[in-house]
Amino acid sequence: MSSRTGIYPGTFDPITYGHIDVIRRATALFSKVIVLVASNTSKAPLFTMDERVAMIREIFRTNRRVTVDSFDRLLVDYARKKKPSVIIRGLRAVSDFEYEFQMALTNRKMNQAIDTVFLMPDERYTYLNSSIVREIARVGGSVESFVPPAVRARLLTKMKRKGK
Amino acid sequence: MSSRTGIYPGTFDPITYGHIDVIRRATALFSKVIVLVASNTSKAPLFTMDERVAMIREIFRTNRRVTVDSFDRLLVDYARKKKPSVIIRGLRAVSDFEYEFQMALTNRKMNQAIDTVFLMPDERYTYLNSSIVREIARVGGSVESFVPPAVRARLLTKMKRKGK
Amino acid sequence: MSSRTGIYPGTFDPITYGHIDVIRRATALFSKVIVLVASNTSKAPLFTMDERVAMIREIFRTNRRVTVDSFDRLLVDYARKKKPSVIIRGLRAVSDFEYEFQMALTNRKMNQAIDTVFLMPDERYTYLNSSIVREIARVGGSVESFVPPAVRARLLTKMKRKGK
Amino acid sequence: MSSRTGIYPGTFDPITYGHIDVIRRATALFSKVIVLVASNTSKAPLFTMDERVAMIREIFRTNRRVTVDSFDRLLVDYARKKKPSVIIRGLRAVSDFEYEFQMALTNRKMNQAIDTVFLMPDERYTYLNSSIVREIARVGGSVESFVPPAVRARLLTKMKRKGK
Amino acid sequence: MSSRTGIYPGTFDPITYGHIDVIRRATALFSKVIVLVASNTSKAPLFTMDERVAMIREIFRTNRRVTVDSFDRLLVDYARKKKPSVIIRGLRAVSDFEYEFQMALTNRKMNQAIDTVFLMPDERYTYLNSSIVREIARVGGSVESFVPPAVRARLLTKMKRKGK
Amino acid sequence: MSSRTGIYPGTFDPITYGHIDVIRRATALFSKVIVLVASNTSKAPLFTMDERVAMIREIFRTNRRVTVDSFDRLLVDYARKKKPSVIIRGLRAVSDFEYEFQMALTNRKMNQAIDTVFLMPDERYTYLNSSIVREIARVGGSVESFVPPAVRARLLTKMKRKGK
Repeated sequence: MSSRTGIYPGTFDPITYGHIDVIRRATALFSKVIVLVASNTSKAPLFTMDERVAMIREIFRTNRRVTVDSFDRLLVDYARKKKPSVIIRGLRAVSDFEYEFQMALTNRKMNQAIDTVFLMPDERYTYLNSSIVREIARVGGSVESFVPPAVRARLLTKMKRKGK
Repeated sequence: MSSRTGIYPGTFDPITYGHIDVIRRATALFSKVIVLVASNTSKAPLFTMDERVAMIREIFRTNRRVTVDSFDRLLVDYARKKKPSVIIRGLRAVSDFEYEFQMALTNRKMNQAIDTVFLMPDERYTYLNSSIVREIARVGGSVESFVPPAVRARLLTKMKRKGK
Repeated sequence: MSSRTGIYPGTFDPITYGHIDVIRRATALFSKVIVLVASNTSKAPLFTMDERVAMIREIFRTNRRVTVDSFDRLLVDYARKKKPSVIIRGLRAVSDFEYEFQMALTNRKMNQAIDTVFLMPDERYTYLNSSIVREIARVGGSVESFVPPAVRARLLTKMKRKGK
Repeated sequence: MSSRTGIYPGTFDPITYGHIDVIRRATALFSKVIVLVASNTSKAPLFTMDERVAMIREIFRTNRRVTVDSFDRLLVDYARKKKPSVIIRGLRAVSDFEYEFQMALTNRKMNQAIDTVFLMPDERYTYLNSSIVREIARVGGSVESFVPPAVRARLLTKMKRKGK
Repeated sequence: MSSRTGIYPGTFDPITYGHIDVIRRATALFSKVIVLVASNTSKAPLFTMDERVAMIREIFRTNRRVTVDSFDRLLVDYARKKKPSVIIRGLRAVSDFEYEFQMALTNRKMNQAIDTVFLMPDERYTYLNSSIVREIARVGGSVESFVPPAVRARLLTKMKRKGK
Repeated sequence: MSSRTGIYPGTFDPITYGHIDVIRRATALFSKVIVLVASNTSKAPLFTMDERVAMIREIFRTNRRVTVDSFDRLLVDYARKKKPSVIIRGLRAVSDFEYEFQMALTNRKMNQAIDTVFLMPDERYTYLNSSIVREIARVGGSVESFVPPAVRARLLTKMKRKGK
């Protein structure tokens, strides 16, 4: 395993089995993985920052090599402080590809020392993302194939509170 | 023709010649086609649900094999009640492709019995969608190549009401 | 089920679990499915036309609604004779998409009455195709997740005959 | 050089080195280039129309062949008045491609006489766009590789005014 | 019109209505257009260089602004001699896009002074290319929607000579 | 750095600055990187296996953490013997993406323990590949921006030997 730290940034609103699969693969490559929850001010998230962090911590509470942190500044500045580190991203589909390359190249332009590695989640999660999970929960569908029980429970509570 | 019912879900805000072309192709394959208008709560539509349903009904009022319905729950739950049925979607461009596959796979995960078939509209409609029709109408352009007269009339009325 | 015939054309060199999944889905939609093996003169196939037809016949020998045929002329001419019929194609990935649309639009240009429907194979087969199966067999890898036992046996025999 | 006028429409919120590279290439092809700033009513821009126009004017103030204009109507109507003219667009990535083709085909449908030419910016700007520049500025990152000094100064001022 | 020369390179094996549409659009932008037929040694063409040049000359024999030439060296070297010139390419689909960008960027790397402009053929030709025309002719289909009469006649003769 | 071995498979016909950039990035992540040259029997390479291996060895002769090896069997079998190891691939463009995912998923299907990580080469190499280098050399163009001097010298010799 690498002595480098793998930093896995995202909004995680909420974390899905696809994210969890990427984190599991990352722990096979890096001695330490930081799941870094972005504040995402450009759109209002369903879950607060505290809720998103809490759900991830609960899922990985027995895995000492996975830690959870949050940030609202520039990713490359965070990565520089955790040096030696590398940014981890999951790649699932062509539409991911262009956005991810844009972010990775932009990060490189701002700090040449911070590189990005891409991992491929299991093909079962190719088309899974957080927004589809939120949408299914909103119309009352079952999300049990997409998120762990702890996340599902919080989704149900959240939807009830918003519901009629 | 198939004794199966083809269910064609969408927002139809408003229906365009591209959608109409897909419905026409579907009626060659299925004995009954339901155009299913989604409530689409995540973004405010230009036309109300009642207006969108009314425009589609007007266009197909002489075609007894096309019916129009609306829903605000899970598509697979609707499809299960209309069994035997299949979901119909139009595929026009690469950007459609990934979104459509995500929806189709998600629907399958929730109900293995509900499959999706994809039809290809005429190449004249490859790059036509409802949002470009709304945008052209908004800036005062002519939409007569894109939507039937009844839809055009309602677009003009709607724009006048919103206008200066 | 539809009284239309679904025609599923391809090279099938050899047939894989991905093709079989598409055929299974097609039989839920059409009362009769013809698997149509193309002669494919532009590149030399690994299996002869007779071998490719025989393998597919073996796999579907108990399914009376699936028949196997071969052709070396224009697909739309074949489809016209089997009227009412529709062409069936599987869509798995973006790279499929453009080729398939090119073929479907070209076929339409030559005969407006022949339409194409696209089915999506199970996500386990998203990236499976015949050429990767041939390549794995060539270097001695196991193809049991990709093709049925009968195809695997013939692949092994074929490879031995070509081998050193 | 062409006696035709090249019209380069966009939101330019704000103009980046990628846009500037396209304009520079356009001036090698056309005797006159109009940078046409769209009002973009569908989403609230960061900079007002006046600010966006002023920044572009400042950058090209010594280049008499580049003029800046604004519009809030239909692009083809503007182009028709400036005849003979051609619309110029930059193409950087696959995601651009489909949107740009949709716009170009729609414009053609509304006015066959107005054609679009696509130019490719330098590969250093492949993944650069205005929204990533705004996002980096928002979290306090350096945008000096992405926009000219005049734009950077205005971004800093704008962010401070919005800041805590 | 531009005093620049537009150079439109390709294999043209054979020229199709899609190519002709691009050339027609190019003549609205450039005072002179050279259709430059590449020798294409990597794959054996159906038509000889002389045949391909002759067909294009025949189609444009009344248009004095279109000339036809052939080359078997580096495109940028040819373009440098015709200065001021610009390379013209048609863009139809996403699969074109990446190949075309690769060529355009490679040409730029070898000669910064030679730029490429992309034109979009009519949507009727989105999925048309020479190889599909050859394939349809090979199996005896009608190519009249795809190539002018002169090309069709030569295709028929060529196929007969190769035929059984 | 990781105690895992990174295995970077490819045809390398010949190695380019794009490959070299990926190898350099890989050595920042893994303590040992094996450049694994595939025999590639499906198409005849320009350089023999021995030549391809020799060129890579020459380039990395002073870097003790990079070794070069060749194989003509199944990649996952090679990787299993070098355990713990991970496969490294460069991702440059959308067209790479689908092919690479197909290979990575196929490898996973054959051996769950062998994962693939994707690295992104410098944007200067986005559209660079071996086949374009061979093509430019074939028509007498300069390849000095694309390959190191040692490779260029061998390309020139090879082309002279094949030349008229």
